[in-house]
Amino acid sequence: MNDAQSVIKNGAVAIKNGKIIAVDKIGKIQSSYKANRMIPGEGMVLMPGLVNGHSHSAMVLFRGLADDLALQDWLQNYIFPAEAKFVDDNFVRVGEQLACWEMIRGGTTTFVDMYFKPDVASQVVNECGLRAIIAPSSIDFPSPGFQGWDDAFAAAVDFVKRSKGKNPRIIPAIAAHAPYTVSPENLKQAIEAARQYDVPLTIHLAETKTEVEDVQKRYNATPVQHLENLGFLEPRVFAAHVVWPNESEIALMAKRGIGVIHNPDSNLKLASAFAPIPAMLKAGIKVGLGTDGAASNNVLDMWKAIRLTALIHKGTTLDPTAVPANTVLRMATVGGAEALGLADKIGAIKVGLQADLIQVELNEPHLIPIYNIISHLVYAANAQDVDTVIVDGKVLMQKRKMLTLDPERIRLEATSIADRIDAELRPNKDAQL
Amino acid sequence: MNDAQSVIKNGAVAIKNGKIIAVDKIGKIQSSYKANRMIPGEGMVLMPGLVNGHSHSAMVLFRGLADDLALQDWLQNYIFPAEAKFVDDNFVRVGEQLACWEMIRGGTTTFVDMYFKPDVASQVVNECGLRAIIAPSSIDFPSPGFQGWDDAFAAAVDFVKRSKGKNPRIIPAIAAHAPYTVSPENLKQAIEAARQYDVPLTIHLAETKTEVEDVQKRYNATPVQHLENLGFLEPRVFAAHVVWPNESEIALMAKRGIGVIHNPDSNLKLASAFAPIPAMLKAGIKVGLGTDGAASNNVLDMWKAIRLTALIHKGTTLDPTAVPANTVLRMATVGGAEALGLADKIGAIKVGLQADLIQVELNEPHLIPIYNIISHLVYAANAQDVDTVIVDGKVLMQKRKMLTLDPERIRLEATSIADRIDAELRPNKDAQL
Repeated sequence: MNDAQSVIKNGAVAIKNGKIIAVDKIGKIQSSYKANRMIPGEGMVLMPGLVNGHSHSAMVLFRGLADDLALQDWLQNYIFPAEAKFVDDNFVRVGEQLACWEMIRGGTTTFVDMYFKPDVASQVVNECGLRAIIAPSSIDFPSPGFQGWDDAFAAAVDFVKRSKGKNPRIIPAIAAHAPYTVSPENLKQAIEAARQYDVPLTIHLAETKTEVEDVQKRYNATPVQHLENLGFLEPRVFAAHVVWPNESEIALMAKRGIGVIHNPDSNLKLASAFAPIPAMLKAGIKVGLGTDGAASNNVLDMWKAIRLTALIHKGTTLDPTAVPANTVLRMATVGGAEALGLADKIGAIKVGLQADLIQVELNEPHLIPIYNIISHLVYAANAQDVDTVIVDGKVLMQKRKMLTLDPERIRLEATSIADRIDAELRPNKDAQL
Repeated sequence: MNDAQSVIKNGAVAIKNGKIIAVDKIGKIQSSYKANRMIPGEGMVLMPGLVNGHSHSAMVLFRGLADDLALQDWLQNYIFPAEAKFVDDNFVRVGEQLACWEMIRGGTTTFVDMYFKPDVASQVVNECGLRAIIAPSSIDFPSPGFQGWDDAFAAAVDFVKRSKGKNPRIIPAIAAHAPYTVSPENLKQAIEAARQYDVPLTIHLAETKTEVEDVQKRYNATPVQHLENLGFLEPRVFAAHVVWPNESEIALMAKRGIGVIHNPDSNLKLASAFAPIPAMLKAGIKVGLGTDGAASNNVLDMWKAIRLTALIHKGTTLDPTAVPANTVLRMATVGGAEALGLADKIGAIKVGLQADLIQVELNEPHLIPIYNIISHLVYAANAQDVDTVIVDGKVLMQKRKMLTLDPERIRLEATSIADRIDAELRPNKDAQL
């Protein structure tokens, strides 16, 4: 994922026990290795699987329920009530399956899930074969199934203790919702627990201007500085959004080695604004990409996040060379892996890394002709161009057919849950399809 | 296309002689009409075909040739030399076919083509069944095949005279490139010819800050005001881009009834900036959407333009209710038709209009579940979800199969042209796929 010169024409990859053991021209691979199974790649690009650094996966069941609303209206009148009423084990099971189907379909091989019911989510991830950081969200006030921070946090720590090291594809983590929804005491508790169990810690950070003003008023510090004051910032932390850091906060994040996950679709849809990605990249921050949840995006489609990232920062800087294609593709793969602390495992096609790979087919008209494959992947490709998805050497999708999930059953169950939500929350939606 | 209440569940449309003759619930249509041919629509949305108000279609053959460059570098060192060297009849024939394939694939039924060789382009459009405004680009300095304004403009007028009324799907038009590339005398000549032959006139307008400064310096007026001073502005005119109008120019465009085509992908990729669409809509300007050419986008994908339009203006205004989903879908259909002066013919599912319709399939995971179909079409759908395309009642694509173009032949011919371009312009691109 370094640059255009790293592209190998007529290349091949040898995989053994879930790991990449050789990368070369196909002739060399064929003369050195004898494969039990060969996956053809004619007319396709083989690339690292995409790393979705921030999502609330099961929220796909709220996809399109409430759009074009002010953030507080959206949260208080739609999302929180819907979550309080409908989020149970079955909701998370079906929602997670639908999310995993969508992510596999679009070539995501690793994702971060910041939501509820981590055991249910883990079971779905275990079964469908994806790689995930499962970070149950803890927040000061009551959330679905929990009475507030003490309960939610205790359950999260319990999940981390029980799950760590159990499945190499599932990394349990701590999630503190945000500086404006979690008290300083609880933020300290969160980072201490992450250190104690040596797991990642994720948080929403500096997402909106309102958050910056609120935190400033309450704690006399801007959000990133507030976390610094609590001793919170270290490389195990990765923060989602970070739309409103000031210059010294950008320098501070770089110095502390925290990861930042850019969620351009969500930031624009909720009118949070444009995160200063060019400045963060320049400062040397590890920046990955995320989709956020489908209630604010409305898709778990990394290709849309990739293209948006390559475009919007050219618009804000009036510099057409800002955030070039290769930089974005890096953010969506190895950059994301670095931000999540997983670069020793995934994110590139490199001997010794896990075989998390995807094949993108180049046969549709929007990918013809081909001068520069990186340009096509960033500016032209769609999720539906992904043909094959491999995680840990195991094929999860081939020729666009799901091999570990049952799409028809998921569709029926998701529709049935959505029908109940719709009947309750929007009784007067007669004219809608 | 008015609002969510206009959505008909289990609806059907009756078509006769290329026109829509009835729109209702399927039961009523079935009991009133007997069809020679029925196209099923279960699990799909039937909607008006998309209207691409600005493109340089054959430039798909330059797709990905030169990205992430400053505008002048891109134009002077890549696009203009490549055009001077490679644009001939065969280039336009193959490029136009590839473009039409891509546009039909993605549900565009009407497009504006501002390029060269209008007779070749018209022949392709005639054969493939799309609807188009063909506007050969005239510019003061030499362009491929022409010696400068006099030649280019004479050829354009000749094309308009010969083509007007010949094929009801092909509307010839005049195109003056831009206020900074066409002299005041030639701009006057252009609008006079458009009036004389009663055809549309299109122009690139206020695209970059540099253009505003240049025009201001040369003519002591900002670009829109400059055109007003020349008596250029009237409803037959539609302008592409309009990224940098000032407040009084926005009011002026509304007063004169000109159409504006918003090209968000291109405006961001070339770092032109964010067009003030919310202000233009508020002023009552007829705003449509366009893709621009694939050398600066890099796709002729209206779904990407739709989603980008719905997102970016929320970011610039910090208002999540800005440019809501339904407004954008309107811009991509009937709004575009109004901007192009075609609203009496196309843009909606309405009795008396031409049957330019598309079916969008809702079976992929990113469109599950369904609460609000308009939200899905704007925030979640992809070009590849389009299943069926109908223009003037004729089916151009069904079950994603092209019925009027030969994709395999187009791919081979496009690849062969691109190989020659690549060998000449980028001899050192060894490592590229």
